[in-house]
Amino acid sequence: MNYKQLFSNIKKKKSFLCIGLDSDFYNIPKCLMNTEYPVFEFNKRIINETSPYTIAYKPNLAFYEALGAAGWVSLQMTVNYIRENYPDIFVIADAKRGDIGNTSKMYAKAFFQEMNFDAITINPYMGEDSITPFLYYNNKWVILLALTSNSGASDFQLEQNGANNKRLFEQVLEKSLSWGTSENIMYVVGATKAEMLIDIRKIVPDHFLLIPGVGAQGGSLFDVAKYGFNNQCGLLVNNSRNIIFADATDRFAIAAGEKAAEMQKTMESLLNQYNII
Amino acid sequence: MNYKQLFSNIKKKKSFLCIGLDSDFYNIPKCLMNTEYPVFEFNKRIINETSPYTIAYKPNLAFYEALGAAGWVSLQMTVNYIRENYPDIFVIADAKRGDIGNTSKMYAKAFFQEMNFDAITINPYMGEDSITPFLYYNNKWVILLALTSNSGASDFQLEQNGANNKRLFEQVLEKSLSWGTSENIMYVVGATKAEMLIDIRKIVPDHFLLIPGVGAQGGSLFDVAKYGFNNQCGLLVNNSRNIIFADATDRFAIAAGEKAAEMQKTMESLLNQYNII
Repeated sequence: MNYKQLFSNIKKKKSFLCIGLDSDFYNIPKCLMNTEYPVFEFNKRIINETSPYTIAYKPNLAFYEALGAAGWVSLQMTVNYIRENYPDIFVIADAKRGDIGNTSKMYAKAFFQEMNFDAITINPYMGEDSITPFLYYNNKWVILLALTSNSGASDFQLEQNGANNKRLFEQVLEKSLSWGTSENIMYVVGATKAEMLIDIRKIVPDHFLLIPGVGAQGGSLFDVAKYGFNNQCGLLVNNSRNIIFADATDRFAIAAGEKAAEMQKTMESLLNQYNII
Repeated sequence: MNYKQLFSNIKKKKSFLCIGLDSDFYNIPKCLMNTEYPVFEFNKRIINETSPYTIAYKPNLAFYEALGAAGWVSLQMTVNYIRENYPDIFVIADAKRGDIGNTSKMYAKAFFQEMNFDAITINPYMGEDSITPFLYYNNKWVILLALTSNSGASDFQLEQNGANNKRLFEQVLEKSLSWGTSENIMYVVGATKAEMLIDIRKIVPDHFLLIPGVGAQGGSLFDVAKYGFNNQCGLLVNNSRNIIFADATDRFAIAAGEKAAEMQKTMESLLNQYNII
């Protein structure tokens, strides 16, 4: 999927929602426990109810790897299900990978060829040659961690650099501008640090930003829109637990759909307010 | 496995070799292609021939994930095989993970409980709360990326920090000293930057260092020993391709054993030369 198609989906659905499929096996409603792949079954029902309101799904790999090979099968089935039934939805592997070039090439193959994800989150610590192998694929995306939503973000990402007095996350934004474009790189910026979006938009005005931390982690959607929108929206705002675990009974999928619809309504009014649609 | 046991194995085998099981499916000898799990079959034979000479095995996850669920099964079978047949060998998941606390907890469960690895490599970019969930497990280890062996290491890891003029990899070493101890944290330091070990040993004199980049990537074992040894060895030197792909015929495992034996001989003489054994 390219930038234009992504923006076109945002306009069509009047939403910039990304739903995190952090489908922790131990939080899955009991009514699914006697199915063969409870995690896939859970995802499938969540997807069916939430798909009208969302632009993207983002499974976090940890929740699948914790189940070993069976988890990997559930992940593959989930990606295939989205592809077959909702082909215009963007699918992100929240994998936070990154390794030496030779090895990153294998990860790119795993996520873009074997599993047909549209995008993968990547940790920038190892620099350019750990990232470029992912950029060789047409219409696929690298989503680089810049400023994350957790407390540990302040340990290194906010530390300033001697030579030009830039913080580490700003160095990541600036250096990566020469590795790819706004057509194949996005950035993770935590909603818990929404005012930082002012500085970030000075460096990457056109790029899409993936924003975790709205909801369970306390970030504000209004601040994110205020400081983060560009004229093609430029935001994918992620919500995981508040939507997918909205209800623990057999109404879980309907409740998830209702939560997603609520967020879409708020997003629609923000897109209108800022004259984006 | 704890520090003492690790050093005791080093003394017993007169080796500080770690063998990287970067078992790329497309490099596996043809003679194994009609087995059910060629990657596992390859690993098993490599392990049988090299186990007398090595202290640790380190599968890099990328090469298994590239095969989807089948790769994950091969990985699990490999770890089980080492556990059952060579219980004193240290097994490292070269996974380079790291996520927000809640998610890192799931990764810790995946690698330490589900798969029974001794250690996992972790990317420090997301800071303390992305790392501590791995430290709750007794006799398990976090191996933090500090200074990697690839060219991209210079993009961020070598950049200096304004406040105290420390490079990023030095900040990682210093901050992490308060998160754990030399009993549960090791660091990745690329052999291609062996002279940096002088600075690194000033900050972490006692910690074990995992050194990739000797061999295929051009680092020197003699320099690594000279600058990196402490009085309990303190080094695990990794070699992958030079050993496991030493020969492409049905002699592949024997050739791997010969390469590993060669490295062990050199390591034995270094351990003697520096009065460590």
